[in-house]
This record gives sequence, structure tokens and C-alpha cells, in this order.
Amino acid sequence: MKRAEWIWYPDDFEIELSGRFMAERYERDIVIPPFWRMDSCYKNVKFRKVFELANAETVKIDAEGVFNVMIDGAYLYSVKTAFEVPAGKHEILVSVFNDKGLPCLKLSGDEVVTDDTWQVTCCDHVFKNAACDEDFLNGKTPNNFSLPSEKRKWVEKIPSEKGDIYDFGEEMFGRAVFSGAKLSEGARVYYGESLEEVGDREHCELLSEDFVAKPSAESAAGKPVGGEATENEVTTKIAKAFRYVTTEGIEFSEIYVDEEISPSVCRSSFECDDPVINEIYKVAVRTMQLCSREFILDGIKRDRWLWGADVYQSSLMHYYSFFDAKSIKRSMIALFGKSPFSLYINHIMDYTFLWIICFDDYYRHSGDEKFARENCYKAFEMMEHCLGRRDGNGLMDSRPEDWVFVDWADLDNSGEVCCEQMLLVAAIKRCVMLSEEFGYKDKAERYRAIYEETAAKLERFWLGDKKGYTYSMRNGKPDGKILMHPNIFAVLFDLCDEERKQIIKENVLENPEIPKIVTPYMRFYELAALCRIGETKYVMKEMVNYWGAMIKEGATTFWERYDPKETGAEKYAMYGRKYGKSLCHAWGATPLYIIGRYIVGLKASDNAKSFTLQPDLAGLKRFKVEMPLAKGTVKVEADEKTVKVLSDEIKGTLIVNGKSYVVEPKKETEVAL
Amino acid sequence: MKRAEWIWYPDDFEIELSGRFMAERYERDIVIPPFWRMDSCYKNVKFRKVFELANAETVKIDAEGVFNVMIDGAYLYSVKTAFEVPAGKHEILVSVFNDKGLPCLKLSGDEVVTDDTWQVTCCDHVFKNAACDEDFLNGKTPNNFSLPSEKRKWVEKIPSEKGDIYDFGEEMFGRAVFSGAKLSEGARVYYGESLEEVGDREHCELLSEDFVAKPSAESAAGKPVGGEATENEVTTKIAKAFRYVTTEGIEFSEIYVDEEISPSVCRSSFECDDPVINEIYKVAVRTMQLCSREFILDGIKRDRWLWGADVYQSSLMHYYSFFDAKSIKRSMIALFGKSPFSLYINHIMDYTFLWIICFDDYYRHSGDEKFARENCYKAFEMMEHCLGRRDGNGLMDSRPEDWVFVDWADLDNSGEVCCEQMLLVAAIKRCVMLSEEFGYKDKAERYRAIYEETAAKLERFWLGDKKGYTYSMRNGKPDGKILMHPNIFAVLFDLCDEERKQIIKENVLENPEIPKIVTPYMRFYELAALCRIGETKYVMKEMVNYWGAMIKEGATTFWERYDPKETGAEKYAMYGRKYGKSLCHAWGATPLYIIGRYIVGLKASDNAKSFTLQPDLAGLKRFKVEMPLAKGTVKVEADEKTVKVLSDEIKGTLIVNGKSYVVEPKKETEVAL
Repeated sequence: MKRAEWIWYPDDFEIELSGRFMAERYERDIVIPPFWRMDSCYKNVKFRKVFELANAETVKIDAEGVFNVMIDGAYLYSVKTAFEVPAGKHEILVSVFNDKGLPCLKLSGDEVVTDDTWQVTCCDHVFKNAACDEDFLNGKTPNNFSLPSEKRKWVEKIPSEKGDIYDFGEEMFGRAVFSGAKLSEGARVYYGESLEEVGDREHCELLSEDFVAKPSAESAAGKPVGGEATENEVTTKIAKAFRYVTTEGIEFSEIYVDEEISPSVCRSSFECDDPVINEIYKVAVRTMQLCSREFILDGIKRDRWLWGADVYQSSLMHYYSFFDAKSIKRSMIALFGKSPFSLYINHIMDYTFLWIICFDDYYRHSGDEKFARENCYKAFEMMEHCLGRRDGNGLMDSRPEDWVFVDWADLDNSGEVCCEQMLLVAAIKRCVMLSEEFGYKDKAERYRAIYEETAAKLERFWLGDKKGYTYSMRNGKPDGKILMHPNIFAVLFDLCDEERKQIIKENVLENPEIPKIVTPYMRFYELAALCRIGETKYVMKEMVNYWGAMIKEGATTFWERYDPKETGAEKYAMYGRKYGKSLCHAWGATPLYIIGRYIVGLKASDNAKSFTLQPDLAGLKRFKVEMPLAKGTVKVEADEKTVKVLSDEIKGTLIVNGKSYVVEPKKETEVAL
Repeated sequence: MKRAEWIWYPDDFEIELSGRFMAERYERDIVIPPFWRMDSCYKNVKFRKVFELANAETVKIDAEGVFNVMIDGAYLYSVKTAFEVPAGKHEILVSVFNDKGLPCLKLSGDEVVTDDTWQVTCCDHVFKNAACDEDFLNGKTPNNFSLPSEKRKWVEKIPSEKGDIYDFGEEMFGRAVFSGAKLSEGARVYYGESLEEVGDREHCELLSEDFVAKPSAESAAGKPVGGEATENEVTTKIAKAFRYVTTEGIEFSEIYVDEEISPSVCRSSFECDDPVINEIYKVAVRTMQLCSREFILDGIKRDRWLWGADVYQSSLMHYYSFFDAKSIKRSMIALFGKSPFSLYINHIMDYTFLWIICFDDYYRHSGDEKFARENCYKAFEMMEHCLGRRDGNGLMDSRPEDWVFVDWADLDNSGEVCCEQMLLVAAIKRCVMLSEEFGYKDKAERYRAIYEETAAKLERFWLGDKKGYTYSMRNGKPDGKILMHPNIFAVLFDLCDEERKQIIKENVLENPEIPKIVTPYMRFYELAALCRIGETKYVMKEMVNYWGAMIKEGATTFWERYDPKETGAEKYAMYGRKYGKSLCHAWGATPLYIIGRYIVGLKASDNAKSFTLQPDLAGLKRFKVEMPLAKGTVKVEADEKTVKVLSDEIKGTLIVNGKSYVVEPKKETEVAL
């Protein structure tokens, strides 16, 4: 018997689920929906497929929404849970309408089963391939989806004046469950990422006030419960991020957590002679695992939204650790929303360019041609939107309604900000590649011309006398400010020649008089740029200093921001709130990318059909790693004498001391240093 | 105390309500959602207004969706049902997120109340005026809206073999209610517009299988009931159109109907010396009243969808009877859906042009400048969509995915169909007027040029030898078919001079060799065109023959189609189904327009600030009417000797025997014939 899958209009599951997920962001009892426009699924869709059946069969039908069934253009009456399909060749067409969620369908017959060979239309004359992901749904229905969960017990009960505090041992994402629960009026659960936070009931970021009866194995969703719950097990309605829990107005015989399990499985390992770096790697893995959920999130406690730049950085970390392609795709789909594209991703100009770069990167790392071909129109729509907003100089100017972000720092982002032009150049280069590859000749020509023209305009920002790119141009004049940001991007996105990169390195990146980068977000780019110009030893030292220190502070996951000068509860404050900082933040997992890309030196090539490997001990004595590839993994062992490489499935090239060696799959390659 | 209104993002109430309403179309137990793309409301919106308060006040908050409240940029915690606003000047900003329906808000304070002075954004940087309509909601909430209903008893119980049939006296729209109900497995209600239909349980179009406990006055929605309902009163879940009811599997002590009451109130009356015409007028009023519901529907039994052409024709009838401006606006809004416009209205090319004409007509009849100014972008978006689909000759060609309708008849609509070019010319003329009026200079120039160019191209369709417009052009050659349709449009939309209109009249419209118009839809245009060229006597005779005969057949409302040759149950068949024909169809109310526009001779002018009146007895001896105007009404009495006119509010011009007389408001004007 074939496997029947829930099917839906492409992208619509991600659009609905991301809306639901992001609107579960709370600040104490205040819901904080995103501040950008959110799209909806198409509510009126039709699914179809032609079958040729040797025998008549009975087909079970499940749908979320009202539905009707047509066979060969004729409606079937009285279809409630099943219908008959006669033998022979027949077109089955099922209409589903749902104005309260995603219209979706599951047909389970012997031969007639729904899967991605079906087509679907939103009634716009165009049929597309239906989408499905039964593995991800894992027994849930599309509109009642939640990640699978596992029971987790507390590890320590800490008495406090206001009530016991339960420590679950490490940061996690889940629902508190109470056995034998009796809820009083005003029943609340308080959460903390830190002991300080959970104990401060007036200021902790997260709490729960809504409870439901814990769903049985059979029922999908819990029923709301009143003050006098008689149900045996009661659970909080919305899953939250925390390590510690305490309660108010709840009597219970037992408390535990249903921890939601990330769908991303780590496919990498790293072990070297420096125990601090080994520990950093482990904590980075846990950090990225927690942030990789329904979508790749920014931070799991406070923000839990999708952001273009965070998904971009996280995807780069993923390629060297989890490589959860589906998670990256879900996130990109949700960020784009519905065509036509008409607002910057998250309202932010730079994040839109980064989506395009992320999309192209995904293709180069995964070799997922089907996804790239079907979705490249999104990159083009975004690019057209951006190009349509250039000023008279053909550059991206800051309009009042646009958010030019660059970095979470005190920056004057008026005028033609150099970083934005650089991202435009980097992104349109990807559009040239995509349009050439997928046969959009006119677009390719157009994009190439704009790419060349705009790349040439970057020279206006280069100040020869100051030996750096100026931050912004206003009224045709450079502001004369040499800051790290555009100079990092110039190196990272290869926007200048090697000679100039060295000038930038000496005069900007390593110049103590240039203001330091302070956000982990921009540090990601900075460290990567430093690695690009050979400063891997320095970067490794920085990693030990910064990430190592967080571990010393007791971090079980990496933080949104870390300042060694902050002590006590002060270190949890951010955004003007006592516990506003997230202690599990995706960009905290930066070491995954730095180690994979620049220490292991792994890079996908030829659309993931091959790879190059250029290991760099960077001060270590040895390392032993396994890294995911688009297919299989590659194992690398390096010490000061030799490098050994073994790839399961994909051929590659090992580069040692400037010399290249072919790596054949399933054959260990060893090269002496 | 000010009145608080539910507020929402403009258009979104109509978009959601129309989706819900149209998806309640059933054919027996099969739901039939529309076959076009349906849009959704924005799910993530923010409402704002600045208040200056003399005193602090408590504001009650109701929202459909999750919400948060900010005052002067700071979130308020713990807002469940009310919040405090301090004295002084404050900006209140409320975010509402709802992914299962319309996000909407109602604030009830002393001074702080929600109404149309609030602004709202879908988080796209643009704030618009919020929309509301508390009168229409009539105590309901936006997501639980239904029209008010009245209890209606049956007038006759007709015993039949299978069970009693209840006759409610005339066609209506409502829910069957059962007191002391006990429902067995498979409980059903069968409906009929005719006794034949209700008695034919195997073939009647409508039935109900879903029942809910009848909501009490307090609760908004009924709960579903199982087989063994213990509730005292049980009602069908979805309101349907019928006159007769019979049941299966339901024991009850009493049956009645909750008849949903149309929000449209008739503002006209007509009385003349011909009793048949008086009766026709009454039945036409009842027909239009039943079809004017949440939206102006096509037919209330079978179709109950919104169609561009039906709304257009109905709006013309409305101006001379109900003049329910809000109903017309709701319908136009729902038809347009969400910007950007990317699919023809109902998939139909002609219906899209008719929407534009309807929109402009609405403005000219109502003088509703606010609505016209705020929504004219929709007409322009539609026009751009159409213009973008012209062929190399600059004409509207039939593409495979487009539905070129023209008429429900056996027509070859391939090539450049003349009617479509004529509608393009008529519609772009309206775009010229609107863009000039609302200050879109560039658009006005562009549209004027295309108008002139396209109007000139209509000459290619005029066949001098055949004395008529040819039906279509294919490969640059006229098909040589002279049919009524384009020649009717040429007269109706003033696309040729008076001399040619006479040629068309003699050679086409009154030529017995040209195939007759058979659909009531096209007859509307035909009769109006005949009136235009002075054939009002003939038209009145036709009206008595056709509409009068339906009344003789027992019609309490006018039918979707009528053929005097059909007898018995045969007359109820259509679309290949025994009772497929709707016995209450909006276009059946055509006499309302013909009488108002051409017999009374009323025409709004100067954007409804004035009117002209050119009465035509058309064979009648006398008539006495009251007709609605944008403000107040106008009363007219005419006989073979004099015409008397009295307008409440608006000045006008009476035209008698080619001479004009000023009609001052509140002053009777009498002119001898």
C-alpha cells in the first residue's frame, strides 16, 4: 500500500504555520505579533490527479476545510468519509475551502493516495505541484501541527520564599505539565532562563496563564480548562523557552515538561586538542538545535520570529552541522510569504538582499535544483522590488519608510549606505547566476548589466586617502567615516581585489582606532572576513575568549550578546528590560560556521556535486571531524603532519600547501603536510 | 456617551464575509465553493488614534483575535477586558492578530471609542481609515455576523406520502427551526422553491443535514447537536432559499422559519392604470429584496455567489428602488478582493469592464465622493490588467485561460470579440473621468489617448454593407456575423451616432431574421437599448408578455429564465438538473430599471447633486411614483395631460416635449403636456 500524505498548495503550510508560531511571541502576558505584513494561505484550492486503475477501489478522504469530489468532471454526492473510484482511467478533482486555516487533503486508497505527484491550483488558472511533508507532520494534521515532544523531569527542586523552583537542567523549549492539577483563579507559571529570572516574578519575561487538558494520544488538541480543572493532567497552552519553572495558584502532585524536539539532527562532530573549543562546539550545536524548530528562529525565548539575516547566518552554520535542508527551506518560504513581493523582508533592506544570497547559497550547498528552479522567481521578484527603489544615482537610498539596519549599533544610516550597495552587488550577482542557470536569458542580461554598473559605482565609496570604504554617501559626497561594516563586507563578498583586502585588513580591521564591532550579529561577518584574509589563529583566540567565557558563566546555550564586564543579573538585561536578553540565540552558534568553513576548510562546489577542503589548524595541534555534505558526510583528521579525508558519497578536492589532491568517494586520502 | 463601533482594515470585513457566504453554496449535500481565487483579510493589523482627554477614563476592550495595547509607545500589561487611559494627549495603538478570521476591535470608553476616525495599517507602512458599520452588524460581531431574522409560520400543511410539506407562502431565505426536536441518524430537511421540487426528495436542489441548537438571545452561535438532541429548539446551520419544507428523521412539536431579513429597504413605489404592470413592479421589488442580502446575489437558491455583471445590473435596478448604497459598495468591494488585481472578476473579461462601469455609475448616482476617491485605484488597477492583455492590434483578444462570456448562449467567442472592445471603450471612458476628477493627470492623459485610439478601432467592426457591427474579428477579418449583442451595446453605451443607432434599430434590433436574445441577462441590455431609441411602448408590451406570464404561472419572485413553451416540472429544469433553475433571480427584477430609467425617465446628473426627469407614458394612461435620490426622494405623477414633480432635497430638471423646466426642491412643479 502506498503512503498517503497530507497535501496543500505550495508554501501555504509554511505561511500559515509561521504566522501561528510568530504570533505566539509573548512578553509576559502581552502577545507581540510581528510588525510586518503577514500573508495568508489561499483558502479556495483544487487538487487533481489522473489515475489508471486496474480495479475499482474505496478511497478514504480526510480534509481540513469543506470539500467536494469530482470524478471525470461529475460531482459525487454523499461523500462523507470515503468514496468509490471505478476501474479505468479517471481524473479525480477535489475542491477544499477553508477560511480558518490551511485547506488540505489526504486521500488513502490502494492506488489513489495523495502525495507530491498531485497538482493543485488556487483557482488562478495555474496548476502547481502540491506540497507535502508527512515526515515532518509526524502523525499530526497540517492545522494542528506541533513538534513531537518528550517527557523531561526536573533535575533539582530549589525551595524559595514564594514557592519551589524546578530546574530542568538546561535551556529547552516545551510545555509545563501538571499531574493531579487543581488551578485557582489567576493560576500562573513563571519561567526563567536563569535562576535570577525565574525568581523575579515581577520581571521575568515569560509566563503562562492559559492551560489546557493534556491531549491524549488520540486527540490532537487540548480543551481549555476552567479554574476547577478535574482533568488529571493539565498543560500550558503555548510552548516556551526556559530552564527553570515556578508556579502560582496551581496545586499538583507532579510537574514535568513536554520538551518539544527539534526536527534537526546534528550530522557533524568536532574534536580537537583544545578542550575549551570542544566544549564551545558542543554548546554551539545545542544552541543551533534549539533555534532550529518549525523554523530557524532568532532566539527561542524573547523573539521567536523569523528574520532574514538570522536565517541567512544560521543556514551557513547549518551546512557545517545539522544541514537540515527542509528547515532552511521552510524558513525561506515563510519569510518570502506570498507573491507579488512588495515589502522588504522584515521591512529591512539588507535582509532582503541577504534572503537572495541565502537562497543561492542554499542551492550551491544542497544541489536542490527542484527547489531552486521552482522558487527562483522569488529572488527575481525581490530583486525587482529593490531595483525599483534605487535613487537617481542608481543606488539604494534610505527612504523614510525603509529600515536600513546594517547592525544593532549607533549608526547614521541615512543616504546611500555603502553596505547596502555592497549587498545589492552581491545579491544581483546571485540573480545573474540563477537566471543564467534556469534559462531566463533576458533577466540574465539585464541583471548582468546592472551588476557591472553597480559594482563599478562601489569605487565612489573607496577613499584612497583614508584607505577604506566610507560608510555612506549623502548628496553625492562621502561621509568620510571609516567603520568596520562596509570593509568587512568588501572582504567577505569579494568586492575588491586581494591587494585592497590587505589594505583593509591593516588599516581598518586590525586598526585599534576604528570602533570595534560589538554585536554578535556583525561579529559573525567580521570573524568570517578575518578568516578570509588568513587571520584564523586570531579568530580562534577570539572564540576561546568570547564563547569560552560564556561557558565559564554557566551558559548551556550561547547568548544573544555577551559583555564580560557585566556581572550578576546585569548580564541578563537587554532592550531596556531586566531579562530581555535571550540566552539561546542562533547567532551565538557562529563557531559552527567558522570551524567548518575556515578550520576544516570545507566548501561545496559545482552545485554540491563536489567539494573542496583546505584544512587550517590555526594554532591547534590536531582535529578530527565529521561534516555533512549534500549527500553523506566527509571525515577529516588533521594534525601537524598529515591530513586524512574520507568522503562517503561525493568526490572532492583536498588542498594542502597550495597543492590539490583528488578525493574519491569511499576512499581514504592521506596527504603529508 | 459616544457610540463604539467594531472597526477593521478597509475591505476586509467584506472579503471575509463574502468568502464565508459564497462557500455556503450547496448542491444537495455537496458544497460548491467559487471557482475563482478567493482572497483573505490581512491577519496582522494595528489600529491607532490620538486622543486628548480632559479626564482619565477606563476603556472596555473587545477584540476578535489576540491583541495588545500601547499607549504612547509603551505596552500595557495585564489588559484582559479593560484598560486605563490617563488624562491628556495620548496615542492609543492596538495590535490585533487573527489567523482564523477578521482581526477587529471595539473600544468602549467615554471619549475613547472606536469608529471610522481611527486609522489602521496591515503593517505595510501605510495607515488607512478604519472601516466599520455598526448599523449593518446590528448587535453581531464581525466574525459571527448574520442578518437579523424574524420568526415566520407556515401558511399551509400539505400532507404527502413521505411526510407533511410545509408551505411558507412565498420564496424566502432562512433557517428551518424545530421546537421539541428529536433528531435521528440521517436527519434531513428538504427544501423546494416549488411544490414539485420539495416533493421530489431525490432531486430537490437543497437539503440540510447539519443542525445546531438555536442560539439564545445572548449567545452568538449555535452549538452542533448530536443525534439525540435534548435542546428544545434546533435550527439548520446554514440559511437557504425556499418556499416549501419537508423533513426526514426529525420529530418535532412545531416547525417555523427564522427568515433572514434583507438589509435593503424599498424606497420606491409605482402605481399605474395597468394592474399587470403594478403587479410586476411588486414582484420585482420582492425579487430584488431577496437577492439583496449580505451582498447582491445572482440567485438565492442555487448560485448565491457574487458576479460582476449581476451586481452591475442589480445596482442599476437599485438606483430606482432600494438604492441601498451600502449593499452595492459591499458587493463591489467583495468582487475586487485584494490589490494587486491579477485575475478578471469571476475570471470573466466582460465582468471586469462592467465592474469599472458599475463603480463609476455608483459614484454618479450616489455622489459618494469619499468612496470613489478611496477606491478608484481599483478601477485603475483593473484597467491596467485589461490593457496589459491586449493583442498586437491593441484589442482584447480571447486567451485560452480567459472566459469571454458576453451571454449565456451558443456563441463563438474566439478572436477579438466586438462586445469586449465596446466594453473596453465604455470602461476606459469612465477611467478617464475618474482620473481627471481625482487628480491623476498622467493616468487621465494615458487613458484618454487609449480611449480615442480604441474607440476609432471600433469602426473596423462596422460592416457598412450588412448595416451592423460584426460579432468578432479573427486574423484581422470580421466574421461577418450580425448578432444582437454588439449592436445592443453600441446603442446602450453610446458608441455610435444617432443616425447609426437608427440603422441598427431597423436592420438589427427589429429585424426578425437576426437570432433573438433568449437570456434574461442580455434582455436587460436589449430592453434598455430599445428604450434608448424610443421603443418604450414595445418594451412595455414585452414586459407584460414575459414578466406578466411568469406571475400567471404563480411566480412570487422572478425566475432565472422563463420560456412560456415549457410546462409542468419542465419549467424548473436548468443546467441539466431537474430543479436547477432559480426562481428568484436578481436579473428577473429588470422592470425596476426599465420603469425607473425610461418610463419615469429619471437620471442622476452632476454627481447626484441634480437629476433630470423625462417621463414617458409609453402607452400607459397615468402613473404615480416615488423614486429614491442620493438624498431624499422625488415624487412624480403623470397622465396624458400633466406631469407633477416634487423633490424633497435635490433640485432637478423636468423635460417635457423637448422643453426643460427647473424643479426646485420642496416645491411642486407642474407642467402641462
